[in-house]
Amino acid sequence: MRILLIQGANMEWLGIRQPEVYGRTTAAELDERLQAEAADRGVSLDIRYSNIEGEAINFIYAAARDGVDGLIMNPAGFHYNAYALRDCLRGVSLPYVEVHISNIDSRGMKSVLATEAVGMISGFGLDSYTLGLEAMVRILKKRTVQG
Amino acid sequence: MRILLIQGANMEWLGIRQPEVYGRTTAAELDERLQAEAADRGVSLDIRYSNIEGEAINFIYAAARDGVDGLIMNPAGFHYNAYALRDCLRGVSLPYVEVHISNIDSRGMKSVLATEAVGMISGFGLDSYTLGLEAMVRILKKRTVQG
Amino acid sequence: MRILLIQGANMEWLGIRQPEVYGRTTAAELDERLQAEAADRGVSLDIRYSNIEGEAINFIYAAARDGVDGLIMNPAGFHYNAYALRDCLRGVSLPYVEVHISNIDSRGMKSVLATEAVGMISGFGLDSYTLGLEAMVRILKKRTVQG
Amino acid sequence: MRILLIQGANMEWLGIRQPEVYGRTTAAELDERLQAEAADRGVSLDIRYSNIEGEAINFIYAAARDGVDGLIMNPAGFHYNAYALRDCLRGVSLPYVEVHISNIDSRGMKSVLATEAVGMISGFGLDSYTLGLEAMVRILKKRTVQG
Amino acid sequence: MRILLIQGANMEWLGIRQPEVYGRTTAAELDERLQAEAADRGVSLDIRYSNIEGEAINFIYAAARDGVDGLIMNPAGFHYNAYALRDCLRGVSLPYVEVHISNIDSRGMKSVLATEAVGMISGFGLDSYTLGLEAMVRILKKRTVQG
Amino acid sequence: MRILLIQGANMEWLGIRQPEVYGRTTAAELDERLQAEAADRGVSLDIRYSNIEGEAINFIYAAARDGVDGLIMNPAGFHYNAYALRDCLRGVSLPYVEVHISNIDSRGMKSVLATEAVGMISGFGLDSYTLGLEAMVRILKKRTVQG
Amino acid sequence: MRILLIQGANMEWLGIRQPEVYGRTTAAELDERLQAEAADRGVSLDIRYSNIEGEAINFIYAAARDGVDGLIMNPAGFHYNAYALRDCLRGVSLPYVEVHISNIDSRGMKSVLATEAVGMISGFGLDSYTLGLEAMVRILKKRTVQG
Amino acid sequence: MRILLIQGANMEWLGIRQPEVYGRTTAAELDERLQAEAADRGVSLDIRYSNIEGEAINFIYAAARDGVDGLIMNPAGFHYNAYALRDCLRGVSLPYVEVHISNIDSRGMKSVLATEAVGMISGFGLDSYTLGLEAMVRILKKRTVQG
Amino acid sequence: MRILLIQGANMEWLGIRQPEVYGRTTAAELDERLQAEAADRGVSLDIRYSNIEGEAINFIYAAARDGVDGLIMNPAGFHYNAYALRDCLRGVSLPYVEVHISNIDSRGMKSVLATEAVGMISGFGLDSYTLGLEAMVRILKKRTVQG
Amino acid sequence: MRILLIQGANMEWLGIRQPEVYGRTTAAELDERLQAEAADRGVSLDIRYSNIEGEAINFIYAAARDGVDGLIMNPAGFHYNAYALRDCLRGVSLPYVEVHISNIDSRGMKSVLATEAVGMISGFGLDSYTLGLEAMVRILKKRTVQG
Amino acid sequence: MRILLIQGANMEWLGIRQPEVYGRTTAAELDERLQAEAADRGVSLDIRYSNIEGEAINFIYAAARDGVDGLIMNPAGFHYNAYALRDCLRGVSLPYVEVHISNIDSRGMKSVLATEAVGMISGFGLDSYTLGLEAMVRILKKRTVQG
Amino acid sequence: MRILLIQGANMEWLGIRQPEVYGRTTAAELDERLQAEAADRGVSLDIRYSNIEGEAINFIYAAARDGVDGLIMNPAGFHYNAYALRDCLRGVSLPYVEVHISNIDSRGMKSVLATEAVGMISGFGLDSYTLGLEAMVRILKKRTVQG
Repeated sequence: MRILLIQGANMEWLGIRQPEVYGRTTAAELDERLQAEAADRGVSLDIRYSNIEGEAINFIYAAARDGVDGLIMNPAGFHYNAYALRDCLRGVSLPYVEVHISNIDSRGMKSVLATEAVGMISGFGLDSYTLGLEAMVRILKKRTVQG
Repeated sequence: MRILLIQGANMEWLGIRQPEVYGRTTAAELDERLQAEAADRGVSLDIRYSNIEGEAINFIYAAARDGVDGLIMNPAGFHYNAYALRDCLRGVSLPYVEVHISNIDSRGMKSVLATEAVGMISGFGLDSYTLGLEAMVRILKKRTVQG
Repeated sequence: MRILLIQGANMEWLGIRQPEVYGRTTAAELDERLQAEAADRGVSLDIRYSNIEGEAINFIYAAARDGVDGLIMNPAGFHYNAYALRDCLRGVSLPYVEVHISNIDSRGMKSVLATEAVGMISGFGLDSYTLGLEAMVRILKKRTVQG
Repeated sequence: MRILLIQGANMEWLGIRQPEVYGRTTAAELDERLQAEAADRGVSLDIRYSNIEGEAINFIYAAARDGVDGLIMNPAGFHYNAYALRDCLRGVSLPYVEVHISNIDSRGMKSVLATEAVGMISGFGLDSYTLGLEAMVRILKKRTVQG
Repeated sequence: MRILLIQGANMEWLGIRQPEVYGRTTAAELDERLQAEAADRGVSLDIRYSNIEGEAINFIYAAARDGVDGLIMNPAGFHYNAYALRDCLRGVSLPYVEVHISNIDSRGMKSVLATEAVGMISGFGLDSYTLGLEAMVRILKKRTVQG
Repeated sequence: MRILLIQGANMEWLGIRQPEVYGRTTAAELDERLQAEAADRGVSLDIRYSNIEGEAINFIYAAARDGVDGLIMNPAGFHYNAYALRDCLRGVSLPYVEVHISNIDSRGMKSVLATEAVGMISGFGLDSYTLGLEAMVRILKKRTVQG
Repeated sequence: MRILLIQGANMEWLGIRQPEVYGRTTAAELDERLQAEAADRGVSLDIRYSNIEGEAINFIYAAARDGVDGLIMNPAGFHYNAYALRDCLRGVSLPYVEVHISNIDSRGMKSVLATEAVGMISGFGLDSYTLGLEAMVRILKKRTVQG
Repeated sequence: MRILLIQGANMEWLGIRQPEVYGRTTAAELDERLQAEAADRGVSLDIRYSNIEGEAINFIYAAARDGVDGLIMNPAGFHYNAYALRDCLRGVSLPYVEVHISNIDSRGMKSVLATEAVGMISGFGLDSYTLGLEAMVRILKKRTVQG
Repeated sequence: MRILLIQGANMEWLGIRQPEVYGRTTAAELDERLQAEAADRGVSLDIRYSNIEGEAINFIYAAARDGVDGLIMNPAGFHYNAYALRDCLRGVSLPYVEVHISNIDSRGMKSVLATEAVGMISGFGLDSYTLGLEAMVRILKKRTVQG
Repeated sequence: MRILLIQGANMEWLGIRQPEVYGRTTAAELDERLQAEAADRGVSLDIRYSNIEGEAINFIYAAARDGVDGLIMNPAGFHYNAYALRDCLRGVSLPYVEVHISNIDSRGMKSVLATEAVGMISGFGLDSYTLGLEAMVRILKKRTVQG
Repeated sequence: MRILLIQGANMEWLGIRQPEVYGRTTAAELDERLQAEAADRGVSLDIRYSNIEGEAINFIYAAARDGVDGLIMNPAGFHYNAYALRDCLRGVSLPYVEVHISNIDSRGMKSVLATEAVGMISGFGLDSYTLGLEAMVRILKKRTVQG
Repeated sequence: MRILLIQGANMEWLGIRQPEVYGRTTAAELDERLQAEAADRGVSLDIRYSNIEGEAINFIYAAARDGVDGLIMNPAGFHYNAYALRDCLRGVSLPYVEVHISNIDSRGMKSVLATEAVGMISGFGLDSYTLGLEAMVRILKKRTVQG
């Protein structure tokens, strides 16, 4: 199983930006934790950061061409109005799980990408990634069984 | 750990109502599965169904008085406009995890209760409950450690 | 043919509440008239009153389990925002005819349940019930022929 | 009893236009059926088709001058924004019954003329006309009794 | 000086329709009064009634071709949404004075044609026509002086 | 004088829920204080709590049948969208005084029930009940004098 | 006949402010013209200018106390949102004629005071005042006849 | 205890303006009654009327400088959009009680000043002032106790 | 190939109305040019002008009955709100190409008919018709090939 | 160079009102500082405070008549809805610089006067006045050069 | 003649993404077809793909500097909210033709770039490009003639 | 003192794009002027241009890592909807001053970034940059004093 994880706009500043909302774990520390959790599940995880919406689109088309199995994304700064990214998600056949560190409903926000997801997990801090990984593995296993 | 799971309006009809959206597992089958998963985690799970918003509020105050540790709810038909239930969630000190079988964003819906949740999980079919249980256990463990 | 007739919120006060809008016939007198009209058509009619939306939902699921053939409802006070009741109607397979004593369009009102009805009759006073009964009988007869 | 029935914009194409919504009975066949039903009730029925809102207004003033007793109309394409027709209905003293073949609420539509009707019947296919005729006869009989 | 006066949708019913709003003078009586007032001012007045927006447009293009000097109109039922008529007014070079018998602001209404008028007079009963005629004569006299 | 006091959704949690907004007096303590104040004024006070909108409607119809003189209500969680309750208030002839502990305007809230009240008192803490009782007594005395 | 004419906010700058819209006649020149026209009609005209909404309200109450017969006003800068002035007009029994130099509809504006007027005249330049005076005289004469 | 009572725009016309809404007691009579009630409570009451929003602001700053203890205001015509007055209330430290003679909710109105009040009383006729005085006395007594 | 070209409301005034927007070519000159271009392509072109929406509907049903192959229309004044015409387009099976002389997006306009078109061409002056003719020929040829 | 500085509604309370937003410098201290800065630049500065919108309008017309060169204004409480003041600014030919102590965008506010300014400076505390003075001097110098 | 053709966000996935909407021709095949059609017309065509809005802006400024004659663009994923790109189009002097494969009106979409185009062509499948090329050649030829 | 100045989307075209709005000074000439002014104040100024929002985000994070003291930005084409950039500004601790050449309020525009600025300066042509530099220097000096 190969999974692409995209960290959207401003995620590189994790642990520094608004720690009262996003916590103090840095991007590098999070990557290490997630790679360990992926390895435990026998999953190959490719983590990419970008502040540029079109670059994220490029990552996704490249992954689709390479036969990656699934996409997890914390759209972060892209959640507001990344309609081109939304069309990209709609166009590729990758199952998509959306994760958010904070509960975006509590903050009065709404992700324009969420309509394209299989499912969404938000508000559990960094555990949102762990739960998202678990959810993606379950999705991919079911597809394999049905295939 | 004692957890209350509320199944909101119309959930009793699970497996019969719109199976293309909610699947064919019945309410009774789901209860059995969730009790097994709770037992595996050493959690005592109390499952309640109601079609009446005020009755769900009564369940929650009763649980709060009884010292229950957490609340998982699929608000179902309550998600549209259950503002009194929302105020109840805001008033009690129980951590709340909201789950939805389908991805409500894809269906253009929005839960007025979600602002009161620690986090939300939606779109993973019945696995949303499993992930919600996992999320709640993690929340309660952290609180114990910090306490 | 067995038909459930639900009288929604505040209908128990019929004949007393705003008689310039709803007339002076009481709930009991209306029931008598409708039972007579149903008997003429060989229809068994079960009339229920409730001021609680979730109780009306309970009536409908019970009827669906009992094999009732059709549902006529004057949602009355439920027409404003009974979204859980709307989902219930969407989920059960009973044909539904909605009736209103007054012309709700003239009063600037809109029923959120109407989208789930086979058809709607409004504005003919208590004759709306008679016409609704006639319409339901026609619907059920066609279904029998096609079955 | 003399009744004018107006078939609004696009009704001439009945049976051809969107048969999945409006059925396959043609305008001519419907006219024949309705004349038979009117005759059964001793009603003289004048049926007019028009695609031009102002022409429908002309029909109504002519009928009002001729002493016609009531108006049944399926506004069809006029229901969207025929405000001049609405003012005409408000101005003449003819009782008006509005009918629709399909349930316009289910289709997210709203008739601007409905506020001027005694009552509305929608969603019962061609039976909407039959029920509308029945409703009009009841209205006119009551007025005679009261007069 | 030649002036076209258009009486819009439903004006033929003047004196009969909603007399508490529009008074009891009939269309024929009004015509007579206005012809007398026009004659006093040496104005040739052509009065046309129509319930069909496109027919009113036809009247205006015909008048423009014939060299008529000005247009007075009570749009009546056309004031709601006669955008094609509005474009026509914008296209022809006739000065246009809009009149209304009742004060349309008091009734919460707004004329989409008013933007194309030199000026508007509303609320003075049938005197609105007299004042409109006076206003048009003043407009045409100024143009003559400037020409 | 007999007065019904209804405490709406979540009021049972008074003194526990959001004490920074609603204070620390419990529901039982409030009841005691109000009964004392009622006794001082020679008023018989019946206090009911409910989290279910339809149950509150039932209380009101029962009171109306029993000849109760007036209704004081803190709608609490019902103030958001209890349209059926609003219709009930409109239908019964009981004078209604609405009270709120906090100033709901300051909190950006609006009660859909307030249109049916004789008057409203909000923002004076528990004194809102005292002032409401005083206001009701004045209303009932005036009615007696005029009767 | 005694008439009060109020010139609202910014009218003192007439002839200087936006002459392409309002022309080059100054306030003083306009006053002279209007006094002459009033004298021709045997009308006593009191002209007041104010930039302060509440001061205009004071003028109106003073006039009402003094037995003035009618009010003409060009609300000018007050037309946007002078709701207190609107309530004042609603409260006094003076007939009110509203005038505007430019066609406010063409400029996308709407006067919140217009609902309180007997009628409105807009767009005829300074002739709007002359027509307004004519209209007021006609209103007052009718009242005298009927009185 | 020294209290300032401001009567907002159009209140000077009390008893004359819309008596079906505001009653027939005049401003002078009301003042007399309120001074008597204030005297009974040992309160010094300063009553001011103004039709000019900015003048009301001046009154409030003067009172704040003079050490007045509280402000009662019936904003009347200021309630629509007196945002500068609202900022003034927010800036001074005087406790503010807002009163309305009629129930403004029933009339579809909303006061922009209400967010700044300790509490609001509306709908009890002139008793609204009496209840407002009582409420203010209670507020000031509590502050004294706590001080 | 037989094609109907409808010129909507106000198109007869082409070359005269707002020449800065629509150019100076008259309707007659345009017809001649288009007939020549149609002849070059071996297409029979029937050009109709109407200011009456319902008359345009009549043209389309007549064409559909006569076996015309396609419809090109510049809706002009109909584009604002011709919902009955829109329903007609939806009902007939003629391929429809919509053309506009000016770029309607630049002018902040939107055609309610455009949803029913195969495609739209706007902004190229009279070349919009030429391109529309070319587009229609391509559409019809493809259908022939597929048929 | 002569410059008028208007301090809008509630500015007299500077240093007292919401010091966490506006600081603790009083109006008198600010005046002194600004007069010193103006003197340094050889500018004659006339500072006026008003809580009454129409009075501010009066100041501006008086200044325009007196040949003042420019206007700086902190509209403060006038920024919400002072449309008459906005029209005044549009009508006089004085260059206008708007200043705000706090960043009004951060506070979700918008000045209706800003459209009439040459430019706006907001958010720099009392330095906003200094920067505004600097900006005005630059504007006036350029005009002198070009004149 | 040199023309730049920009293929906006997600166009690289043409033929793969939603083929039921966009068809099965790939981006490479389309390029080949368009180069052939350009060659037939003696046009030099430069085709660029980008998923990054700012990169498309860079392409346009580079082309403007290089003396390219015209721009054809299918904005695709940029049509939703590419306001910076819109400003770029407004700033450069290149004539711009916008093309869409599908009829965007039918899909309820609107391009924010369309206001800047000479004209728009949408809904004709890949023929939209051919028609766009034809339209651009006509525009450039006219400019040459006029130049 | 080290300051980063970002010139947002389309600023590279300064002096060419819409010179009636932005003037004829080119980007290179502006840079030279600003470097001179910065040198006069002993400020090191780093000027960057970008048409890509995410690239601007990259510049800001790089500057934050490098210890730059403040950020001045003319967001230009980014002001419409650069929410990711807004989040970036919110996350870094750099004081931010926003500048605009034209008065964006006059043009009906609003910057989504302005909420994150210390202050905003708009409408003074290229002097907006000079004033912005002055403002930033004052901000940084105060911080030094307080530090």
